[in-house]
Amino acid sequence: MAVLFRSDPERGEVFAEVLAASLPDMPFHIGEAPDPEAVRYLITWLAPEGLAKTYPNLRLIFSLGAGVDQFDLASLPESVGIVRMLEPGIAEQMQEYATLATLAMHRDLPAYLERQRSARWQEGVNEPAARRRVGVLGLGNMGQAVLEALRPFGFPLAGWSRNPRWIDGVECYTDLDAFLARSHILLCLLPLTPETTGFLNADLFAKLPRGARLVHLGRGRQLDHDALRAALDSGQISQAMLDVTDPEPLPEEHWLWHDPRVIVTPHIACQTRAWDGAHHVVAGIVADLDGRQPDGLIDRAKGY
Amino acid sequence: MAVLFRSDPERGEVFAEVLAASLPDMPFHIGEAPDPEAVRYLITWLAPEGLAKTYPNLRLIFSLGAGVDQFDLASLPESVGIVRMLEPGIAEQMQEYATLATLAMHRDLPAYLERQRSARWQEGVNEPAARRRVGVLGLGNMGQAVLEALRPFGFPLAGWSRNPRWIDGVECYTDLDAFLARSHILLCLLPLTPETTGFLNADLFAKLPRGARLVHLGRGRQLDHDALRAALDSGQISQAMLDVTDPEPLPEEHWLWHDPRVIVTPHIACQTRAWDGAHHVVAGIVADLDGRQPDGLIDRAKGY
Repeated sequence: MAVLFRSDPERGEVFAEVLAASLPDMPFHIGEAPDPEAVRYLITWLAPEGLAKTYPNLRLIFSLGAGVDQFDLASLPESVGIVRMLEPGIAEQMQEYATLATLAMHRDLPAYLERQRSARWQEGVNEPAARRRVGVLGLGNMGQAVLEALRPFGFPLAGWSRNPRWIDGVECYTDLDAFLARSHILLCLLPLTPETTGFLNADLFAKLPRGARLVHLGRGRQLDHDALRAALDSGQISQAMLDVTDPEPLPEEHWLWHDPRVIVTPHIACQTRAWDGAHHVVAGIVADLDGRQPDGLIDRAKGY
Repeated sequence: MAVLFRSDPERGEVFAEVLAASLPDMPFHIGEAPDPEAVRYLITWLAPEGLAKTYPNLRLIFSLGAGVDQFDLASLPESVGIVRMLEPGIAEQMQEYATLATLAMHRDLPAYLERQRSARWQEGVNEPAARRRVGVLGLGNMGQAVLEALRPFGFPLAGWSRNPRWIDGVECYTDLDAFLARSHILLCLLPLTPETTGFLNADLFAKLPRGARLVHLGRGRQLDHDALRAALDSGQISQAMLDVTDPEPLPEEHWLWHDPRVIVTPHIACQTRAWDGAHHVVAGIVADLDGRQPDGLIDRAKGY
């Protein structure tokens, strides 16, 4: 029985240390396993090719990211469980980024940055938070953490999810059109699935109030980039802040880099911290050895 | 007995409406008073010249801003009380801006904006909030409101004031050097007084940890702009976000507009909202008529 870590070796050393302290009898390898048949637990960002053949006794794959959309789930053996990264640092970073982005949209930061570039001292009018309705697409762990971070600022908050939810102080919708119609700032925190691919498109933008603002924290393929450009040009969307794009990295000549109405960051909202991530993996292995279900085990039918 | 409003007439109409509802028998004038001797209460941003002569029966000046540094206090008759603007919207806006700016500094926004300008997809490393110590200069209403807004993010928080303070969850200093030495992100929320003019200077910057970040929300004259430039060039300060400058507006050719390490906004952190501001003034007039001290009456010896 062994654990294999396939990613940045420097990070791997942190995992090695944490595993050695908690599971001293469990062999741990970075990069390659001397005996692939012994590998029960794989820690990785991407699934290596021919995984089922190379590691016939694999029980769990621990993703190094909060999402698992980088895996082609259908190609992975059914007997293998997929565990997504859950560590408090991810939610904390998401709260920071989402709050920064929401306040940047609320306070017209792209417009002020553009004025700075043209050396123009020009005051706008601050809209009260009570009149700026914020809506979060996706009410999983991340969506809920973001709503909690936004609560103190006084924005009327709403959330949308496919299944009904109840969250204190948040208007929860399952009716997407009604949710969109009231959202001046829209945050996308949906997982990437076939249903959410291309979700942020011209139809959806048309249902927002005119001049709405978009914060995209899901996955690049959820956003129809051309539709966003058209919505910005028509004024239907006035500003956006994107941490994810399609493709990533964004090519040098892409219009998004140069549009003053958009702030783009290179998928840095959340980074897994090796120490915390290693503890999550140890807890998952211990749970599995005890015959319990590890925290973060995904539902393969739903894809998240 | 009359009230005179000397500022933007559109805003004045909002004041007129609120005063008419609350104090229907009190004459209210916008711009000029037909009988200056009747003016007991003046609502204004700047003190008109020859104020003591023109309005010999003036009791209170209500400032339209949170600060009173625009007045030459020594030139105003001692019998006239100066009331600064206190309305919940000001603290709310300050919390929004200070949180936006602190998170922008924490998450390296200026560096990412610069990479966007050069179409460069380059990830940095997110520092945990627990390792980013935030310090607030000035622990009055505004400083305390800002600390309250920053509390949920997990930054170790400290504050500095001349007189000892105790605030839950905030390390309160009166020793400036010790406070500076621990502050990775420094926020200035000091009122402008002779003692705080030029307060943010080369000496002070040298006492911060190397690579510290500055958020300036006080007044432009508190900052030695050349010293900031030198500190940015030497790496002692790595980034800054300024809402106030000296002079304002900033001239077109000023280096601050064009420095990628600095975000500048045109003094928009807080704007007095006419409706809320009018209610504050009404409460102050009612207090004075009842022989009580209005909320926000400044201590002329301290200057705030």
